[in-house]
Amino acid sequence: LLSIKDCTFGIVGLGLMGGAIAKALRDNCDVAREKLFACNRSKDPLETALKAGLIGRGYDAPHAGEMLSSCDVVFLCLNPSAIINFIEQWADAFKSGSLITDIAGTKKNIAAALEKFREDVDFIPGHPMAGAEKSGFANSELCDFHGKNYILTPILRNKSENLDFLKDVIYRMGFARITQVTPEEHDGKIAFTSQLCHVIAAALIDCETDTKITRFGGGSFEDLTRIAMLNAPMWTEIFIENNYALLERIDQFEKSLDLLKTLIKDGLADELMERLTLVRERRIEMGKKE
Amino acid sequence: LLSIKDCTFGIVGLGLMGGAIAKALRDNCDVAREKLFACNRSKDPLETALKAGLIGRGYDAPHAGEMLSSCDVVFLCLNPSAIINFIEQWADAFKSGSLITDIAGTKKNIAAALEKFREDVDFIPGHPMAGAEKSGFANSELCDFHGKNYILTPILRNKSENLDFLKDVIYRMGFARITQVTPEEHDGKIAFTSQLCHVIAAALIDCETDTKITRFGGGSFEDLTRIAMLNAPMWTEIFIENNYALLERIDQFEKSLDLLKTLIKDGLADELMERLTLVRERRIEMGKKE
Repeated sequence: LLSIKDCTFGIVGLGLMGGAIAKALRDNCDVAREKLFACNRSKDPLETALKAGLIGRGYDAPHAGEMLSSCDVVFLCLNPSAIINFIEQWADAFKSGSLITDIAGTKKNIAAALEKFREDVDFIPGHPMAGAEKSGFANSELCDFHGKNYILTPILRNKSENLDFLKDVIYRMGFARITQVTPEEHDGKIAFTSQLCHVIAAALIDCETDTKITRFGGGSFEDLTRIAMLNAPMWTEIFIENNYALLERIDQFEKSLDLLKTLIKDGLADELMERLTLVRERRIEMGKKE
Repeated sequence: LLSIKDCTFGIVGLGLMGGAIAKALRDNCDVAREKLFACNRSKDPLETALKAGLIGRGYDAPHAGEMLSSCDVVFLCLNPSAIINFIEQWADAFKSGSLITDIAGTKKNIAAALEKFREDVDFIPGHPMAGAEKSGFANSELCDFHGKNYILTPILRNKSENLDFLKDVIYRMGFARITQVTPEEHDGKIAFTSQLCHVIAAALIDCETDTKITRFGGGSFEDLTRIAMLNAPMWTEIFIENNYALLERIDQFEKSLDLLKTLIKDGLADELMERLTLVRERRIEMGKKE
């Protein structure tokens, strides 16, 4: 692969994350406008991005192939199922030798789809852990990559030089830590840190209809439910796609909740305090920089 | 009552919240150093506060009575049960005509304790909704009152001029909104916005022993579990004191969680998306400024 500034980059899906990646490539990775293209179903974000001088060219969905054939590096920034549909539909259009990556929140299904993908195109699945409560290109400024995690789930045939290249781009975009794991490990861990948290936030809002309850908020409620302002179609897809791992995590959480409930119900102050002290210490440990 | 700057203020318990209130009285309410006293079990915070010029005098626990007899306004900044013990032990020491308030996170028990309290001292129970994950005077800078909620649960015999005075002090300290409700309503609402959130955060940490899981964090997990770094003795007390309302809230939450779990398990994408869309809209509504 060429050096970053000599590569032509393509963004498929100029939404919240696609827009944030485009901006990070331009601002932090020395990618010139004429080396950055974007493809999107609706034309509005493309026109905004062109006017702002963010991208060199915009392509609507039917012309995705034209863009792909001229790109050395492509970021697929669509919902998980749309990514799989896209690479099936446009398989032949990718430039031979190009590096493709994606941003999907589930990775086993992407790995499965890649089993029958072209071998002359290097697809390295990834997951930037840096979302926001709003969606769409107009909100992409809300995605702050600084200090955030990025997960990569490489497949066996990925070229090590491409992996190095992608990691370089990721760090330059602002991410602080890249963790490389199998798709299975990714889906199991993310079921806890991300999906379970979204389900909990949704359940918290689901069980209280009084929207004036925020008069009684002190920050905890607001912090726990901010992610309930989720992108409903995307999270529906993610929850159902990763249902096995997620349901296991919900069960584990329910067991811990039941235990605390029993201690409260039975007024077992010493046991409850002991448990809360352990929780406190573990969370402090989790917050420490490695 | 006198004007704020002519009153002598006393802080009982110079911990996280006591320290933050002392600073806010000095910085935002024109209270002079020689008009602000503090009483604390350990001497360290008193010495630090004296050296920093924050308070005019410090009193250790056995000398609490001396301070109380000279104060026009007293903030009781102790754990709920300690507040009740304190007003029983020092009932005779409060200055006749003085205004007392507290910061306890449960209010029915305070109201019950006040039924037999001196009638010549005006105790207005309150709850500043502005905590932090750390405790102690040294961390009181972490309590940011700006834009926060404050709940008051006045009792029948509170004087309206004292209530106005206290509200004036609260707004000047930086709080944005004061809500006045019965102790029962307070305990019911707070069981949801505060206690349930703390139980959930604790359960989330309780069910995952891998402290390196934060490599897979994207902000959601961190936001949902920050309050798991709770003050274990204080929250044990609050959970058990308010167990009836809290257990009801846990049950409601578990029902909503079960419903979402079933939709995920059964792969009912349309119903799940509909539910998540309602949740999203409700949370957006909750976030709007009134």
